[in-house]
Amino acid sequence: MAGIKILTEADLRQAVQLDLAAVECIEQAFSALAGGDVVMPPILSMAIAPFNGEVDVKTAFVPEIDSFAIKVSPGFFDNPKIGLPSTSGLMVLFAANTGMLEALLLDNGYLTDVRTAAAGAVAARHLARQDASRACILGAGSQGKLQLKALCLVRPITSATIWARDPAKAAAAARQMTAELGIDVTAAIDAAVAVSAADIVVTTTPATEPVLMAEWLRPGQHITAMGSDQHHKNELDPGCFARAALYVPDRLSQTRSLGELRTAIAAGVVKADADFAELGAIVAGTASGRPSDDAITIADLTGTGVQDTAIATFARKRALASHAGTDFTN
Amino acid sequence: MAGIKILTEADLRQAVQLDLAAVECIEQAFSALAGGDVVMPPILSMAIAPFNGEVDVKTAFVPEIDSFAIKVSPGFFDNPKIGLPSTSGLMVLFAANTGMLEALLLDNGYLTDVRTAAAGAVAARHLARQDASRACILGAGSQGKLQLKALCLVRPITSATIWARDPAKAAAAARQMTAELGIDVTAAIDAAVAVSAADIVVTTTPATEPVLMAEWLRPGQHITAMGSDQHHKNELDPGCFARAALYVPDRLSQTRSLGELRTAIAAGVVKADADFAELGAIVAGTASGRPSDDAITIADLTGTGVQDTAIATFARKRALASHAGTDFTN
Repeated sequence: MAGIKILTEADLRQAVQLDLAAVECIEQAFSALAGGDVVMPPILSMAIAPFNGEVDVKTAFVPEIDSFAIKVSPGFFDNPKIGLPSTSGLMVLFAANTGMLEALLLDNGYLTDVRTAAAGAVAARHLARQDASRACILGAGSQGKLQLKALCLVRPITSATIWARDPAKAAAAARQMTAELGIDVTAAIDAAVAVSAADIVVTTTPATEPVLMAEWLRPGQHITAMGSDQHHKNELDPGCFARAALYVPDRLSQTRSLGELRTAIAAGVVKADADFAELGAIVAGTASGRPSDDAITIADLTGTGVQDTAIATFARKRALASHAGTDFTN
Repeated sequence: MAGIKILTEADLRQAVQLDLAAVECIEQAFSALAGGDVVMPPILSMAIAPFNGEVDVKTAFVPEIDSFAIKVSPGFFDNPKIGLPSTSGLMVLFAANTGMLEALLLDNGYLTDVRTAAAGAVAARHLARQDASRACILGAGSQGKLQLKALCLVRPITSATIWARDPAKAAAAARQMTAELGIDVTAAIDAAVAVSAADIVVTTTPATEPVLMAEWLRPGQHITAMGSDQHHKNELDPGCFARAALYVPDRLSQTRSLGELRTAIAAGVVKADADFAELGAIVAGTASGRPSDDAITIADLTGTGVQDTAIATFARKRALASHAGTDFTN
């Protein structure tokens, strides 16, 4: 008979927020990934075409962390038509030394949202200029808003613009963020103008063709592309790679097949076997971050199993400390 | 707020047993796999070497089935030293049309045991002689005993032998099976003699070198190899392939890398690109089963995600019908 902790989405929202503690949790995970003893298998991905759905499974064993998570992320893009969210899912946590089930984290994707935004903060912390104060977010979904919140944790952001294909959505997101963050957030009508005026740009769209063009970029900018996590997605004009002094993948093997690097390789802008230091190496100090104040830098984040193992373990510890959740005996 | 069904191992043992209904459930899953519209991604496998552990994740979308399972199987082989089972795990069931979480099946590997044994019954039903009455099991673990029980469901088995490296284990298993099945089950001292005397042989060991030699085989026998499900495992002497008239994989892409076929290819007995009809095609009637009463046939079963999706959906339906389990709101 084993005791299992069951944590609902409400329990997890109580236990974990997007704050500096979450950012540091994810930063340590990237650092561990650079260490070489992490085991992170390729993503298991299954398309369910008849229902316009897909499901991804991610995991990683991190020697520094006592548990490992198996994260299951379904995405069913016709769900909103019947009043259901597109994305849902859960994380299952196991003891790393015995494989015994420890906790079921029924987060409906909340922890993924947090760890994804936290990765944006980690990228900005190591790649954006210290004085970066103007942010631009392409995409007005929940991840776009979280990314802006994440930037405010690590850089002195004083103003931001939000652009989306649907201007009404951008306006609503800008109003909400102005209220939540207490900074000046406006909806952008022209993406080119918004991008050019920013110090940090984050792309968080489901785009399959570029939403950010190379000629919009200005010296000193940092770009984080978050949206591409499937073989058909693309947010950055491949020309951006030619303008950037530094390109940083979260996991090179993933960005080559799922990230912005895939499109850049296909366009012939980058060689298929080109090597790039990963974000974790920069965090760990074994590779260099931003080379100069004038450089353009790009982070390409496809999402990694180490983030899932780290945030799930963090959430369980927080929940145990506050006696949250339901104990279930099997 | 979504309603999720949580089923414990006890609930699942109550709901599902190894019987003809379970065999038919798995048989239909193999038939669907032959139909071509199943989506079954490669197994996600992660080794956790510091703790002599591994974890496998399997899944499949089967158009004929309303749900899909994500099955997580940890195997930590030092666990018995500290009083824990080597294998555990759970199945997570999602609605196939929306990806919404339906049920958590905390089976600790029980449903895997059942669906694995049921696949042995399916193989015997389509490949063993109709009059096969003498069984031989190599391996005295719980799966060995279940395989014998499974054979008794589909063939007129009147006697059986069990061989294991540890003769005391074989003797205990034989006593138990005699009592449970009401047939004559004896422990075999000499594996060669036991194999030669049988009509059906099932190998269910964790062996990494052959436990069944080609020269022990006799005309008319059927062999099911169950043990190999990892790149380093091997139960059948590659010479068995030269003696068999028919070789049947559960999933050819898996047996080439994980099954007995892997070793036979490595030994040069079978060409790397040799094509073989899968068990599902034989079930569906699009490929032929046993060619003659004198033929030797081999089934190579590595375990497939369709079996997991099928048994988990079956278990949930049984549990719902009997109002078993705990309803959990998230």
